[in-house]
Formats: sequence, C-alpha cells, structure tokens
Amino acid sequence: MSTQPVRTLETFQGGVASPLGFTAAGQYVGIKAAGRGLDLALIVSDRPATAAAMFTTNKAQAAPVTVSKANLAASHGVARAVIVNSGCANACTGSVGMQDALDMAALTAALVGCPPDQVLVASTGVIGVNLKMDRLREGLPKTFATLGADQGPAAARAIMTTDPFPKEAAARVNVNGGTITVGGAAKGSGMIEPMMATMLGFITTDAAVPQPLLERALRDVVNDTFNAITVDGECSTNDCVMALANGASGVTIDEASYEAFAEALRAVCLPLALGIVRGGEGATKLVTVNVIGAATPDDARRCAKAIANSPLVKTAIHGGDPNWGRLIAVAGRAGVAFELQRAAVTIGPIVLFKDGRPYDEAAPEAANYLKNDELTVSVDLGVGSASSTVWTCDLSAEYVKINAEYRT
Amino acid sequence: MSTQPVRTLETFQGGVASPLGFTAAGQYVGIKAAGRGLDLALIVSDRPATAAAMFTTNKAQAAPVTVSKANLAASHGVARAVIVNSGCANACTGSVGMQDALDMAALTAALVGCPPDQVLVASTGVIGVNLKMDRLREGLPKTFATLGADQGPAAARAIMTTDPFPKEAAARVNVNGGTITVGGAAKGSGMIEPMMATMLGFITTDAAVPQPLLERALRDVVNDTFNAITVDGECSTNDCVMALANGASGVTIDEASYEAFAEALRAVCLPLALGIVRGGEGATKLVTVNVIGAATPDDARRCAKAIANSPLVKTAIHGGDPNWGRLIAVAGRAGVAFELQRAAVTIGPIVLFKDGRPYDEAAPEAANYLKNDELTVSVDLGVGSASSTVWTCDLSAEYVKINAEYRT
Repeated sequence: MSTQPVRTLETFQGGVASPLGFTAAGQYVGIKAAGRGLDLALIVSDRPATAAAMFTTNKAQAAPVTVSKANLAASHGVARAVIVNSGCANACTGSVGMQDALDMAALTAALVGCPPDQVLVASTGVIGVNLKMDRLREGLPKTFATLGADQGPAAARAIMTTDPFPKEAAARVNVNGGTITVGGAAKGSGMIEPMMATMLGFITTDAAVPQPLLERALRDVVNDTFNAITVDGECSTNDCVMALANGASGVTIDEASYEAFAEALRAVCLPLALGIVRGGEGATKLVTVNVIGAATPDDARRCAKAIANSPLVKTAIHGGDPNWGRLIAVAGRAGVAFELQRAAVTIGPIVLFKDGRPYDEAAPEAANYLKNDELTVSVDLGVGSASSTVWTCDLSAEYVKINAEYRT
Repeated sequence: MSTQPVRTLETFQGGVASPLGFTAAGQYVGIKAAGRGLDLALIVSDRPATAAAMFTTNKAQAAPVTVSKANLAASHGVARAVIVNSGCANACTGSVGMQDALDMAALTAALVGCPPDQVLVASTGVIGVNLKMDRLREGLPKTFATLGADQGPAAARAIMTTDPFPKEAAARVNVNGGTITVGGAAKGSGMIEPMMATMLGFITTDAAVPQPLLERALRDVVNDTFNAITVDGECSTNDCVMALANGASGVTIDEASYEAFAEALRAVCLPLALGIVRGGEGATKLVTVNVIGAATPDDARRCAKAIANSPLVKTAIHGGDPNWGRLIAVAGRAGVAFELQRAAVTIGPIVLFKDGRPYDEAAPEAANYLKNDELTVSVDLGVGSASSTVWTCDLSAEYVKINAEYRT
C-alpha cells in the first residue's frame, strides 16, 4: 500500500501524549459510581493543531457529537484540546444535555486559554442520563492540573466503560528528513459496529498535516481499521474518532509523504481497533473473518460483516465447534452474489467445505485449531475476485450477563 | 382486514390431520441420536391436493428445497404427501444429498401410490451432514403404517430439533354454505429470521382452493405471521411453509370467500409463528415490537426487525432493564427516516422517552412491567404514519449455551 520502505516505521509503547507538544490527563471526578475507575480525560496540544474527525452515522446523535461537529466547522478544523468523560453518554438528554456539552467545551477552553470552538467534546456511557455537571465543574480544574506527557495511560483508562483493559498505540516514522510520531487511545466494549465512524478514538501526531490530507488519511485508515470491526452489530449514538496534528516535530506532510503518514496512522489505528475487539464484552477470542471470491468489494465487506455479526457463527466459535454450515448459511442470506457449488469454507488452514461437499474428516483438526485465542475463518463466495477482512469476537454467555445487568 | 364476520371463525386444538381427508404420522427411525425424540414425519392426503409453498431466500438452498420446488413445478401445484425428517438438514451435501432427497420423494410416492412429483420433501437439523438413508429406507414403511387422523401431534413432534415444545394450530370457518378446517404444524428454535419464507411450517385444509388463490393467501398471511418473527436474525438454508388444500370438505373457495379463508389461514399461522418465538432457543419472553410513526411500511418493518434482532435490546429485556436508550440507538442506526426530537419510546403502556427527553421517573414501573412473560415495546419514529409489528424473544445465556454446544 505504501511506496515508502516499511523499515522507516516503528511501533512502540505509547499513546496520545507521545507525539511532541501533547499532554494528557485522566482522573476520577465522580461521574461514575465510586470504584468503577477514572471518568474524565483531557488531551491538550501546546499549540493549535489541525483537526479532523469522523462521527457516528446514527441518527440519534449525542450532544457532544453535535457540539464537536459544530466546533470543527466554526474553527475551520483547528483544535487545542479534547475533553472526554465516561460513565454518561450525554445522549437523548434534550436541551439540558446540549448546554452541558457546550459548557464542557467552554470550561476546558477557559483553562487551556483558547476559543471554546477549539475544544472537541466526547462522552461515553449510559444513554439518556444527564451529566453530573457539578462534579465535572469541580473535577475539571483538578484534572487539568495533572496534565503531563506521561499521563497518556491515565487518559486511556479514563475513557473506559466496560472495557476490560485500556487501548493505546503509538508509531514513529522517518519522513521528509525528520521523525514524526502518531499516538492514539480508544475505548470500545459493547454497541460496537462503527458505521463510517467508530467508538471513541483519539489520535495525536506532531506532524504538520494540512487539513484536507489529515481528513483523507483518517477516512482511508478508519475504513480498514475501526470500521472493519464489530462486536455486536450495534452502532452507538456517540461514536467518534478524532485526530489532532500539531506540527511540533517540524515535519510537514505533503502529497509525496502522504502514504508514509497514512501507514503510521494505520499502525496506530489497527492495534487500537483490534484491542476494542479483544476487549469486546464477554469476548474470549479475536476472530479474523476473510471473505474472498466476491463479485465486488461491497459484497465482500457486507458478507464479512454478516458473518462477523452472526450469533450462530459467534457461539459456534465460542464453543470450539467447526460448524462451517453456519458460515455457508450466512453467506447465502447476506444478499450478495454467491454460488454454492464454487464456494468454500476454511477454518484456519483447514478446508471444511469445497466443490459443493463437506470435508468433515478435517473437523477434529479444525476443532483443535478453534482452541486458539486468535483465529481466522474464510469464506470463498465463488463468484469473483474481490475480498474483505473484518474482525470480530466470539459471543459468550458473559456478553448476555453484562448487557442484561448493565444498569443494575 | 376481513369483511367476513369474525364469529364464523373458531380456533380449536388440532393440527395437520384435523382437516377432512388428511392423516399424519411421526416416528423415531434413527436419524437423530437415540433419546433425542422422533425424527420422521409424514402428512398424507387421501386425494390429490392443491399445493402452494414458500421457500427460503437463502442462496445456499438445501437439497429438499430444490426437490420440492421442482416437484411443485412438475406437478403443476398438486401434492399427495409431505415427508419430513429432523436431525439432518441435508444441506450442502452435494450430489449425494440431492439423490437422497429425490429418493425420499420416490420411496414415499411408492407407499402412497402417487407420482414422485406429488411428494414434497423437507429436512431440518445439522447442515453439511448426509442423511442416514438406510435408517430412512427401513423406517419409512413403519412410519407409513402408523398414519392416522389422530397422529397430528406425533408429526408435530417429529419435525422438532431444539424446539422445547411442538407447535400445532387449527381453525374452522363457515363459508359458502359449509365448514372448512385449516390445520398446521411448525418447528423453529434457532436460525430464525424467515425471509419471504420461514422455518418448516405445514398447513392443511379440506377446502378446495384454486392454486392461484392458495398461493396468494399463503403469501399474504405468511408476510404478517412467519415473516414477522425473528429469534436471532439468521435465515436458514431449509426454510419452507407448505400448504395443501384437498377439497374434502366439499367447500370451494372463490374470490368472494377469499378473505374468510385467509382469516382461517391466519388464525392457524399466527399461533404457530408465535409458538416458534416462544420456543426460540433460550427464550424466556415473547416480545411484541411495534414501530409507529414511520415514513413508509418498509421503514417500519426494517426498524422493527432491527430492534427485534438487537442483542443489546434483547439482553436488556432479558435482564428486565427498561433501557430505552438502546431502542433509540437502534432506531437511529436502522437506516430509516427518524427524528429524535419527535421520537418516543414506550415499554408496555409506560412512556420513557418523548419530546427529546427521558421520563426516567417511570423507570421503576417499566422495570416491573418487564417481569411479564409477554410484553410489548414501541418506538415512534416521529416522521410519518406507517407502522409494523414484529415478534421476537429475549436473548439469554442459554441461547449461547445451546449454540456453542449444538453439535457436541
């Protein structure tokens, strides 16, 4: 995909505060119940950063989504800070919720010393509950006081809801005579099937990236990373990925170096996206779903998503059952071109259905393969040459338990 | 919907052998493992019956679906018998499976004394496993020997897989100076989201119904009954509903009496369809999903299906949590016209979201209502006047358990 040598790219343990000129903070301010972890995160650039974002396509958009979109437009794609709370989605909260999201931006702007429209806002948690603004007003200055280049991990923890672990990633790449760093943090867990957007994801870079290039890179990379994962086929009211490029490295990205930057961005987004799947509610396995032999890329993606969301496929994988018939049944109902006689199902390296007939003698070997924590299933639709990869997790009784008891 | 007086219609405890001239049988012949219940069902009309059927739209069609379609075409819509096995779907079984389905029809035809193309064939069970034809050859004559007008319940049990109980229904209606009877049996459980067809459903009637009228009635009624249910959003390779009308009552249905016949058909199909939902894998609750205020009937149905298949909605209902935010989130992502400010969510009779704001003071009352075994949730999309009703069940840990262990 890149014409740059891959050896210029290096991933390392880091996050949103790894690029030059960025600091982060994560604190508990009392939005969540006590003992449920940190609940307020802040990411600040020491200078105005070029900003791009992708938001949920859900028509029930949360107040922070509306406010962030408006601020991005008003500031012409410039941001100094991102303020994020967990424990409350501030969605379906009417005019009070809208004022709360505006206040979050204004309070942050006052501390940072920038116009309110240079602050992006995000929230995640229960839908339909108003923010505890008194807690936020009291806690925000205290959180601001802890900002530091070493606080990326705290910020990554403070955006979690039912996530079992924080998701951070960072990459460095030599480009245009200098080194740029890209860092990121994301949260996921449930209500995960991003549609042209994703769950909360925050990307920082010290490259200088013209706004149209930043937007293009974010769109391209998100399509094959955050938008290629699913936990439960549910697209939330609050999904967003935000990218801030502050230029502190002294390196400017142009058309010639676009691919190198996009590669670095991908190197950050993909592990974050896979981390969301690994940490999916009740997940015990990371499943790569490959669909090949499709008539079109759209068919391939649609079929891969249908497989990745199939409760029968996900429970079979959970149970370690190489039940390839369920994969064929989904491919047949997915609304895509499909020819049973030329189709094939492969679990790991093991062919289980091909040329219109089962290869069940391979079932024990496939059952053994399914014991792995990370595994691949592939379906050949038998009609063309397009393909798509989607990542998902298995469906366990624990998912049901978590979501039957979420608010209790 | 009907212009006939409702009082002509009477439902009663009965099934496929209740209409005059029909007999049925259900036996264990060794296709399933011992102890898993009956596995071979037979329905026979004592004279050629007009036949209509709707089949799965899944592109991976099972051999019995292919054979039944061909036989219906060859016989010009006439059938004497239906042969059904459970425990093996005979799907994705190649040329061997196709020959097995043809043999099932031929063996049955020889016993009944009719051309093979007057036999319809259906199978249900594991995909990708060949039929034990030796067991079937041995068991079919024994099953045939038990045919009787009192064996409808045995036939209803013999088509079950993981169904927790058999599904039968029957109705009588006075029409055109006589009385006609409609009877039916169905099986469901998992892989249930019929698409222009359904799981296995068998309908008999002693009315004489011209084939075009029988087809029209079946299509109309199935659309609002079997096609309006979902357990897990999965459309199987073997779905079919078959209707046989043998005229033994001496009553002929014409355009003037069409609605009375369709009402009787509906009175049989709806309880069968709801029975499939009640007996859905792991189901503990029957949930009626109403979508109102939609721009178009298609929008209403699509949104109702999206809600009915949402794992987050289904787990919340399982847990008794009146989490209306999840209903709004699904409506927002369902790809239909939707206005948050004019939308509303009602659980039972209790309004929880309206005019853009939560009514959480009603949450305890709604939680109490959700303790019912049968309940209704409604979403007003706030944009038009079209509506749709879909039936689904809750999602329990037991569903995961059943499907993680299905073949073990």
